[in-house]
Amino acid sequence: MAISKSPYRGTRDFFPEQMRLRNFIFSKMAEVSELFAYEPYDGPLLEEIDLYRAKSGDELINEQVYSFKDRGDREVAIRPEMTPTVARMVAQIHREVSKPLRWYAIPNLMRYEKPQKGRLREFWQYNADIFGAPESLGDLEIIQLAIGIMKSFGANNEHFEILINSRRFVDYVFAGPINLDAEMTKKLYKLIDKKNKMPAEKFSAEVNLITNDPNKSAIFERYVSLSSMNEVETFFKETYQGSNQEDDFSKSLQPLMNLFSQLDGLGLKDYIKFDPSIVRGLDYYTDVVFEIFDKHPDNRRAIAGGGAYANLLAIFGETPLPGIGFGMGEVPLTDFLTSHKLLPDFSKQTVDILLGYLDTTAEKASFEIAQKLRNGSIKVEVFLGEAKPKKIFSHSDKKQPNFLLILGSNEIESGEIQLKDLKTKAVHKIQLSDVDKMIELIKGSR
Amino acid sequence: MAISKSPYRGTRDFFPEQMRLRNFIFSKMAEVSELFAYEPYDGPLLEEIDLYRAKSGDELINEQVYSFKDRGDREVAIRPEMTPTVARMVAQIHREVSKPLRWYAIPNLMRYEKPQKGRLREFWQYNADIFGAPESLGDLEIIQLAIGIMKSFGANNEHFEILINSRRFVDYVFAGPINLDAEMTKKLYKLIDKKNKMPAEKFSAEVNLITNDPNKSAIFERYVSLSSMNEVETFFKETYQGSNQEDDFSKSLQPLMNLFSQLDGLGLKDYIKFDPSIVRGLDYYTDVVFEIFDKHPDNRRAIAGGGAYANLLAIFGETPLPGIGFGMGEVPLTDFLTSHKLLPDFSKQTVDILLGYLDTTAEKASFEIAQKLRNGSIKVEVFLGEAKPKKIFSHSDKKQPNFLLILGSNEIESGEIQLKDLKTKAVHKIQLSDVDKMIELIKGSR
Repeated sequence: MAISKSPYRGTRDFFPEQMRLRNFIFSKMAEVSELFAYEPYDGPLLEEIDLYRAKSGDELINEQVYSFKDRGDREVAIRPEMTPTVARMVAQIHREVSKPLRWYAIPNLMRYEKPQKGRLREFWQYNADIFGAPESLGDLEIIQLAIGIMKSFGANNEHFEILINSRRFVDYVFAGPINLDAEMTKKLYKLIDKKNKMPAEKFSAEVNLITNDPNKSAIFERYVSLSSMNEVETFFKETYQGSNQEDDFSKSLQPLMNLFSQLDGLGLKDYIKFDPSIVRGLDYYTDVVFEIFDKHPDNRRAIAGGGAYANLLAIFGETPLPGIGFGMGEVPLTDFLTSHKLLPDFSKQTVDILLGYLDTTAEKASFEIAQKLRNGSIKVEVFLGEAKPKKIFSHSDKKQPNFLLILGSNEIESGEIQLKDLKTKAVHKIQLSDVDKMIELIKGSR
Repeated sequence: MAISKSPYRGTRDFFPEQMRLRNFIFSKMAEVSELFAYEPYDGPLLEEIDLYRAKSGDELINEQVYSFKDRGDREVAIRPEMTPTVARMVAQIHREVSKPLRWYAIPNLMRYEKPQKGRLREFWQYNADIFGAPESLGDLEIIQLAIGIMKSFGANNEHFEILINSRRFVDYVFAGPINLDAEMTKKLYKLIDKKNKMPAEKFSAEVNLITNDPNKSAIFERYVSLSSMNEVETFFKETYQGSNQEDDFSKSLQPLMNLFSQLDGLGLKDYIKFDPSIVRGLDYYTDVVFEIFDKHPDNRRAIAGGGAYANLLAIFGETPLPGIGFGMGEVPLTDFLTSHKLLPDFSKQTVDILLGYLDTTAEKASFEIAQKLRNGSIKVEVFLGEAKPKKIFSHSDKKQPNFLLILGSNEIESGEIQLKDLKTKAVHKIQLSDVDKMIELIKGSR
């Protein structure tokens, strides 16, 4: 029986068009990262599963990780996210290197998901982190970087926004004015995560079920209705009565307010928005959390998400090293760029020159010229095998190279060739031996 | 108990220095591939195991593949090589696209190996293939491409050579003059593969055991002693007595001789050598086979290997489409480049400018200038947080940016800054607002 030609469920074959698109996206990400002096890194595809048991949520391990035992009976997993790996790597070297560490990677990850739009089993995810920066300045830089990447694709504040919150602030609201215990806090976090997926009445009912107290529910409902930093400030002042306001304020809210004011100062006001529903589950985040959202009403989805963590290195027995980072999946990003028509056309290969020959007498010369052109950084496609002009023209129409050169016994004998510029239709008569002239013309028209 | 900080056995953490090296190697491979009009592709990390059962050798499946059942009870494997994937992908589209197809990829692969020098469990492998080319011209181009990649790293015929053989020729020697049956042929192929790992007497003894005939052994021993195409031709003429020489010659040896003569014609004579011990196991190869070898006597190892195949698509029930391709592992390549001192230093990050500030009054201006410089494609590291000059200088000494700019209240008040070129030690006085001038100076010194 014939073997299946399809890729494994939830994974993709990247044919040249898709691969050029992927390369384009990855190279922009790398380019902007380097402009911010972030350095590239990568880790292994497989990690021992204990790394994820210690770091990631239960759902990820129990339901989504591709794990198995190797031939030495060691339990391993294909990386479902990059943060545990980067933490493991930083734990190895953080004592010897100067801080902050600025790192980025674009690893392939796998999760056992039910494949659907925007969600696949194998995907790539850009990751950037800054470790050991003076606190709010790391937050500022990483959000600048996130905006910089989006802008490098031609996206602006009409296309996307960054929704920001602070775990420190949320934790304080839950523990302070609402006065919830740890169990209730956990439940409310989960509920916030699901807020946008349920009707308002259902949400209220669930809140009441958890707090079992109309006053607490009212404060919580007011919290989730906050839509700007001004409202947040008023909310804080009105609800934190009786607490040591100044201390609490500077601990729980001031850093977030500083961040907003710094981003405003850099002219990024129209890119950022406070959003009480951004809490990033029960992960390792301890401070600022954010998500980049598509502004298109039909496509309200997160393209990227991240946050600050106080202590990612604890599981390795290392001293705390705070940081902030984010991940950006190529699948939602590509969907975003496609729906906003921000992607160039990648269907055609870029070839500088197609070089064909009419008879075997010109074969050797063709290969020689091709080699010399390539030494001059010209992308050359040789039409392999002698062929009639019609066949070469037809291939040229399909591939659309910038230049066309056809050699035959005439050219070999006369020593003169005709180099056709297919964009301007100009025909350049050049000596067969003058490859430098050809290189100059081809480069000049790029 | 603390979690281990080490990567999983046989895999690597790529810290920035190693990652810059890897990026350098991959970008050279991609660059040269594009000069030859090869298009990029990639396939999934996981494939269903049947794909490898149908294509790869037994050893690979039984001993070296990372395979497991997914949560849907489907048996999958982490790709141990790229050829089955590229065959699967080509099988999907070969009817609709114009030939030849020229494709390259640089996938990460995994094999369950005992880690040792030059051999790891996770590694990357450059792969290039040309499908559907007029026969010997595909061989010619792919070997040109292999040489082109090696040369792009500064390697030449003093550092490496390409050892070439032809499965068609070897098969004919075994079936013709030596007159072996299929079973013996299989055994001799395996023996040839191991030739360089055993003493000459042991090799002879093993040959005798297999052929059980002194005459056959003598012919075989003569075959393995052939060291040039001239000797091959003489050997053919002397041993093929009684056969239909002309036909046999044109079928089994002529294509290989043409390839050598074409490569000679392109000035590549000093890069290529006939080698009877290159047979590439019992894989899917049917014609030209080759390996790139390090010439250094202490490091005689294959850096790359490949060959021509008549019918990679048969298992998908597709019509035959001949091709030729090769794989080049980054591990042996890096070892090769390191031992021949062909690698640049990647220990330092490239930063155009380090921008520090002495007090918070200069913070906002620093971030603003950084943002403008980055818009002009300048790589900027901001020294986060106010700091004394000494601290900024010390960091600058460590990171070695090309330029240094330190802002303080003086600069903000006067509106004039001093941009230091750390290579020439020149100090440029510029208006704080004249970011274009800074960009010009920084770019001019690259």
